[in-house]
Amino acid sequence: MKISEVGGERAVIELIKELAGPKSGIGDDCAVIEPHKRKTVVTADLLVEGVHFRADWATYYEIGAKAAAVNLSDIAAMGGDPSHTFISAALPDTEFDDLRELVRGMCETFTRYGSVIAGGDTTASKSGLVINITQTGYCDKPVLRSGAEVGDYVMVTGPLGASRAGLELLARFGRKKAEEISPRCVKAHITPTPKIAEGLFLAKSGVVTAMMDISDGLASDAKRICEESGVGMEIYPEKLPISDCLREAAGYLGLSEEKIALAGGEDYELLFTTPKPEEVAEVAVVIGRVVEGSEPLTVTGGEKTKPTGTWTHF
Amino acid sequence: MKISEVGGERAVIELIKELAGPKSGIGDDCAVIEPHKRKTVVTADLLVEGVHFRADWATYYEIGAKAAAVNLSDIAAMGGDPSHTFISAALPDTEFDDLRELVRGMCETFTRYGSVIAGGDTTASKSGLVINITQTGYCDKPVLRSGAEVGDYVMVTGPLGASRAGLELLARFGRKKAEEISPRCVKAHITPTPKIAEGLFLAKSGVVTAMMDISDGLASDAKRICEESGVGMEIYPEKLPISDCLREAAGYLGLSEEKIALAGGEDYELLFTTPKPEEVAEVAVVIGRVVEGSEPLTVTGGEKTKPTGTWTHF
Repeated sequence: MKISEVGGERAVIELIKELAGPKSGIGDDCAVIEPHKRKTVVTADLLVEGVHFRADWATYYEIGAKAAAVNLSDIAAMGGDPSHTFISAALPDTEFDDLRELVRGMCETFTRYGSVIAGGDTTASKSGLVINITQTGYCDKPVLRSGAEVGDYVMVTGPLGASRAGLELLARFGRKKAEEISPRCVKAHITPTPKIAEGLFLAKSGVVTAMMDISDGLASDAKRICEESGVGMEIYPEKLPISDCLREAAGYLGLSEEKIALAGGEDYELLFTTPKPEEVAEVAVVIGRVVEGSEPLTVTGGEKTKPTGTWTHF
Repeated sequence: MKISEVGGERAVIELIKELAGPKSGIGDDCAVIEPHKRKTVVTADLLVEGVHFRADWATYYEIGAKAAAVNLSDIAAMGGDPSHTFISAALPDTEFDDLRELVRGMCETFTRYGSVIAGGDTTASKSGLVINITQTGYCDKPVLRSGAEVGDYVMVTGPLGASRAGLELLARFGRKKAEEISPRCVKAHITPTPKIAEGLFLAKSGVVTAMMDISDGLASDAKRICEESGVGMEIYPEKLPISDCLREAAGYLGLSEEKIALAGGEDYELLFTTPKPEEVAEVAVVIGRVVEGSEPLTVTGGEKTKPTGTWTHF
């Protein structure tokens, strides 16, 4: 049954209300949020079918779950606690069951991390699916990108590159074959995990000077911290945490692990700087130092290189 | 120059930062909002090219201004004061100057009503332009749709139907000819005004029991108050405020003024219920009564009729 056959927009709103659960405030012109003594952090993410996800590689449930995870990751990057979610969706006249799975994937993921689906908007789309999620969180001391200082250590919360390797495998071989080669790389790409607990721990530690999540890739995201903080960075490629699954996939793809780890996006690990790495060593590893300068450079055997291989949507 | 020729997404973000003004918090994973003693109201609106607006009828500046006005109208409908704006845009690789005009229309409108452009997202679109705006406001006592009581009066803040008449004129005759016939109807459709001051006044009056803005049309929006409040309504068509411009356009279009006023959407006037119409008479007129029942009925010469002519996107 198509969306238009089961009642159009009203049916979609009813579906979201049902899957969002009894705490949702959907149904008025605005959602109402009570005053709160902590600061509010807010992020928005727009996901376009064919640009950010492909319905031929992932199930609708997985697409929904990833959309949620990506947004929650921005809250993690500030050290926030997820609070409210607003979902807007421009929908082609697709199968209602597909839409149900999509919304279920989103709602289950947001609910798992404690966020309340509080509102949004739905409309028709003449082309593909477009989803915007605006996510709020509460935070005592949000960690910005602008606080890195020369001498700080650069750290990441986990292995890099698996998501990009998963994407390359999916693009070259399709889902079935890609999963035979490296189920973990495919999983890293299809259903990433937001590092909420790590973000909360790091913000609470009080020793983190700048933080962000790695969405576009270590090289380009490190550049943003450099720009916002007015510093440079030295990144030591041999120290980058590389998971076993990336090793196996990189061989298959004929690409260098190091390059994938540096340039590959959508890992959703947290990248941060701190003068006291020992105080946060239980959730992260050192990959470099903050130095004077204006951009990140990789250092291998004493030689400094500008990392390449970022990607852009245009 | 196309967006891709001037630097892609980064250029778009720089443009939004520039036009949003110095108070904007754009540039980190999340915007940070200080704690506030009032409640927060939040709304989201998704606008799709070809569904909600057409670039052949309106300039990009006007499209941006309307997108802002529509969202601010939801804040007005709760009785809120606009505070923060989050703009997401999926952009075809269009002319950068068009995009600049679009963003300028949005930013100027939000700024005029006191809202700070605090964040958002941009991405490429393989088809048309899609914009999501999430708008927040502060409010002491938000007015919901669910408080209407039997015996209340039904009121609106201004004339109805002009926007729909403008749309019909544009669809049949194009912008130039439509403006010759009725510049005010075209203006009502292309650049509607959010009723922020009226919403604040009505919420502060303390006598408004239910309120919403008229976006889909009086008939279908009145139905939503009925559903949320568990009441019926009697609407007196002869009392509907009809502007002069609607009279002239209706004659030209061969449509009944009353039908356009009842079914036409996008007026963005406020529809509300109150037991004390005299206390809010300076901003609104009575058009009906709240009665027992479950839906709005029009009453003409003692005869009750179910109003028809709603529209839907699917």
